[in-house]
This record gives sequence, structure tokens and C-alpha cells, in this order.
Amino acid sequence: MSTTLADLGEEELVRKLTAHLPQGPQVLVGPGDDCAVVDQGGDELLLLKTDAVVAGVHFLTSTAAERVGWKAAARVVSDFAAMGGEAKELLVTIAAEGAVASEWMENLYRGMMRCADQFGASIVGGETVSLAVGTATLIGVSGTGLVPRERLVTRAGGQAGDRLWVTGRLGGSFESERHLDFTPRVREGQWLSAHAHAMMDLSDGLQRDLPRLAQASGLGFTLVEEQLPCHEGCSTGQARCDGEDMELLFAAPRGDWEQKFRAQFPELELTCIGELTAEGPQDLGDGGWQHFQGGKR
Amino acid sequence: MSTTLADLGEEELVRKLTAHLPQGPQVLVGPGDDCAVVDQGGDELLLLKTDAVVAGVHFLTSTAAERVGWKAAARVVSDFAAMGGEAKELLVTIAAEGAVASEWMENLYRGMMRCADQFGASIVGGETVSLAVGTATLIGVSGTGLVPRERLVTRAGGQAGDRLWVTGRLGGSFESERHLDFTPRVREGQWLSAHAHAMMDLSDGLQRDLPRLAQASGLGFTLVEEQLPCHEGCSTGQARCDGEDMELLFAAPRGDWEQKFRAQFPELELTCIGELTAEGPQDLGDGGWQHFQGGKR
Repeated sequence: MSTTLADLGEEELVRKLTAHLPQGPQVLVGPGDDCAVVDQGGDELLLLKTDAVVAGVHFLTSTAAERVGWKAAARVVSDFAAMGGEAKELLVTIAAEGAVASEWMENLYRGMMRCADQFGASIVGGETVSLAVGTATLIGVSGTGLVPRERLVTRAGGQAGDRLWVTGRLGGSFESERHLDFTPRVREGQWLSAHAHAMMDLSDGLQRDLPRLAQASGLGFTLVEEQLPCHEGCSTGQARCDGEDMELLFAAPRGDWEQKFRAQFPELELTCIGELTAEGPQDLGDGGWQHFQGGKR
Repeated sequence: MSTTLADLGEEELVRKLTAHLPQGPQVLVGPGDDCAVVDQGGDELLLLKTDAVVAGVHFLTSTAAERVGWKAAARVVSDFAAMGGEAKELLVTIAAEGAVASEWMENLYRGMMRCADQFGASIVGGETVSLAVGTATLIGVSGTGLVPRERLVTRAGGQAGDRLWVTGRLGGSFESERHLDFTPRVREGQWLSAHAHAMMDLSDGLQRDLPRLAQASGLGFTLVEEQLPCHEGCSTGQARCDGEDMELLFAAPRGDWEQKFRAQFPELELTCIGELTAEGPQDLGDGGWQHFQGGKR
């Protein structure tokens, strides 16, 4: 019997598929970080990202289309923020069955446009493809961002002894529908890019995302679960595993940046949740959300 | 009853959706051309494109995955060529059910990598999302290209009196499976960008694409159907309507460029098929391929 995607799992599949990709010398960061990074020779680096949301996985068929549109665009904006950058141009792919109401599509675009507008991005193109009746609607958003060359933060720059921090609170994003209305941490990411050694956004849950940051940095980590900042009504287990928090996770050395951050963003919580270590575990066992293997949701 | 996508049709839908998009001053060309064009301030303009192919629409479930991969990447490379540019970085979105064999995915990537490699593009990132069982596989490719500032050719620059030309031959692309193995006209597009006033690639068939070029240029056109260069076994009607030819259609003034082109590309046919006119019809009636309305295939 041949191996299926479900057997292999997303991470192993991506590892196999991306092992021998053709890449020119201008590609500073390829697959495996929040965005790809391209050196065009100027003061700013080009960030590239593609992402997709699917009915039944990332939103419900009953979800208001405008909220779906916001989420689809905001996820990409958040990825640029996680590198210290900001979104510039977005391209939209909508795959839907012919019977989808055009009003739904207009409201979807309304949500994407609101997000693009709020974060200074342009929507420059799109593609619509028809699917067979009964097929789940898919919204793909890809785009470009820019980050000043000296401000780029990847997942790979963490150093042993860096403390690990998260913005905001975690857990219960689906149940509360926060995943549909979240605010990408753009100004925060840009501010932090002057201080963080490594950074990413929390889309699949700390359980799966924290090991990725540590592994990219070639380090282990400690996590103090009781320190996790939980949304009201959520356990620390939910804060660790639920996913779609879309907050920033970053590693930074001790310094007076923390005090300045709190002064700059007085309404956003900032919590130290652990530390990067030279030795120590690099994963947290099973949990979080993994595509193709029928995860928690 | 609400209006569905099938009622509205793709072109009208796109017109509605893109009427009020947020766009910064750096966006020189938005939706409606082969690519979006962004001015980053340098000698070269940034080209952006997203495209998707779907099982059952753009390929058969029985089609060899490597050919699907080639087609998915080559379509985007062809769009950059149609602006006079070349592809630089590609991002891949694969939406598939969990039961798809990982070997199929590896072969898909093999085809995309072969295309990227041949045309000097880098594959810099990807996204895989799981779909419900029985859902058609979708492969989205988006990416960046570059074109020297003075070489950009859009659909909109045609002038009355320009002659209309096509490269290669037209018709029968699906039946012959040429749509899976076509060669994007990259060198040809770059060469022609010094002479053509307007250009596009033929993806939906001359019947639908030629009026788009004429309308973008604010002109009418004449088409001499009996001059259409038909693939062996194809009628001129097929050459006009079948679609997926992926040849270049362009408008250029009379001049010695034609002779030079034939000397530069001796193995590629080049055929004058009509003329842009100040007056005259701007469409060819019904035909060609339109998404969402259950076209010819």
C-alpha cells in the first residue's frame, strides 16, 4: 500500500517536498519560517507568504463571510508581522462552487478589504476557480511584505538563555470566535524586531509552535505551564493546545526593552513563559493542531 | 432569490469585487491584466500573480502528477512572460484530501521544480491544507516576477493600426494534452517587450482573450479567421475557442521587428491574425471558456 498524506503528516511531507527546491542566491529564507525572505539588494527585504483557509476547517459554512475575509487576510498580515515586517500587496484565490451566492463573495471581499485597509496593504489581484457542487470553499491569500534589512527576525536566531515571551492571552480561540476577528500584532512585531532574537506567530498552538522556534534555533526550551496567560474560562492545557491564538511568541535577552514595551503597548499583556536552553527537550509531546491527520478539530 | 456565481459569471463578479480595492500609489497595474505591477522604486518593476488549477477542470484525476505540477507552475511563468518579464519566486498551495498518496504529491513537486529550474525561478514556500474526502485537489501557485521598467507591456497599450499577432499554433490543447507540457514563451516575451504595444498570454482562448486586450486598449479589432494558425487536425473554430493555448497574443506596429523575430526564433511560428481598430467590434460573441457558468469543458 502506498503512503497517504494522512499517514505521513504535514511536517514530514513538507520536509520531503522541500528538501531539494530550486532556489537562487537571493532567497535568504525558504520554507519553514513564517515567511520566505528575498534579498532584492535594497534597504528592505522582500517577504513572501501564501496561506489558505477552508470551510469546515478554518471557519464554518455558517460563519459570516466578512469575518472569513478578515481572517484570511489577517493571517497573512500576522505572518509578515512575525518577521518584523508589514504587508504590502495581497493576491486572493477563491475556489468555490458555482452556487455560492455572489453576496457571500462580496462580503468576503469586504472583510479582506477592511483588513488590508487597516494595515496599509493593497489588494492587487485575484483568481476565482469553480469547484464541483458540494465542495468546500477555499480562500487563499498570498502576498508580499517588506522589512528593513537590519530588522528581520526569523525563528532561527534564538540564543541559549533568551527568555520566551508571548503577547496577549492564549486558548479558546475557536469557541470564542476570536480566530475570526483577531488583530495581527503588526506594530508590536515591528517594535519587537529591534530586540527579539527569534519570533513567530502562534497559529497551530504553543504545543506545536514553540518546539518549531526552538528547533529552528537549534536549542531546547523550558516552559512554565502555570505561567501561561489564559483567556477567561480556559485552562493552561487549552492555552497550550487550542491554536489559532495569532499572538506573537518570541525569544529575547534580558534588558530594559520589557519595560519600554509595556509603556509603548500598555493595553497588551506580555508574559514570560519559559526560556531557551542549550540542552533540554525540544518538544511537548502530542497536541496542537496538525493537518491531514484528523487533529482535535 | 439571491444571485449565484453561476448567474453572474466570472468577469462580472471580478468587476464587482475589484471595483473598490484598497491600493497604494506603488500599484501601477491591479487586477485585470496578466499580472499586477508594483513600483518598488528600482530599475525593475515587481510583477505579482496568483493562479490555481483544479482536478476535473484543468487536469484529470488520472493525469500524471508531474505533468500537473509542470502545468501549474508554467501557467504563472507564462503570465510573467506576457508582461515582458520573468518569474523569480514561486509559492505553492496544495489543498488535497488526506487520502492522496504522498508519492503523487512528490511527483507534483517534481514537475513544479523542473519548470522552476528551467526558467530560473525559486520555489520559496508552500502551504498544504486538508480537504474532506472526495474533494477535488487544488494546486495554487503564486509568485513574483521582474521586468525592466522600460520593458513592461500590459494589455492596455495597443494603438489603432497595430497589427495583431500570435506565436505558435492554436487549438486542440486539451485533446492533445499540450496544455500539460506547454513551454511558456519567456524568451519570446522578453524579446517582444521591446516592440509590442500590448501583450497577453492565451489561456481562455482567442475568442475571449482578444476582446480583453482590445477593450483594455480602448479599441476594436478585426480578426481574419482563415489566417488562424491551427494545430494539425484543428478547425479555425477550435483555434479560436478551445483555450489553454498558452501562446502570446500581441499588438505591434509595422516594422522590421518581424524579420528579426523570425531570425531569432526560427522554429516558432508567428502569424498576423488581424488588426486593432479605432472603431469596430470589441467581442466575438459567445465562446471560449468561462468559469462558473459551465462552459465547454
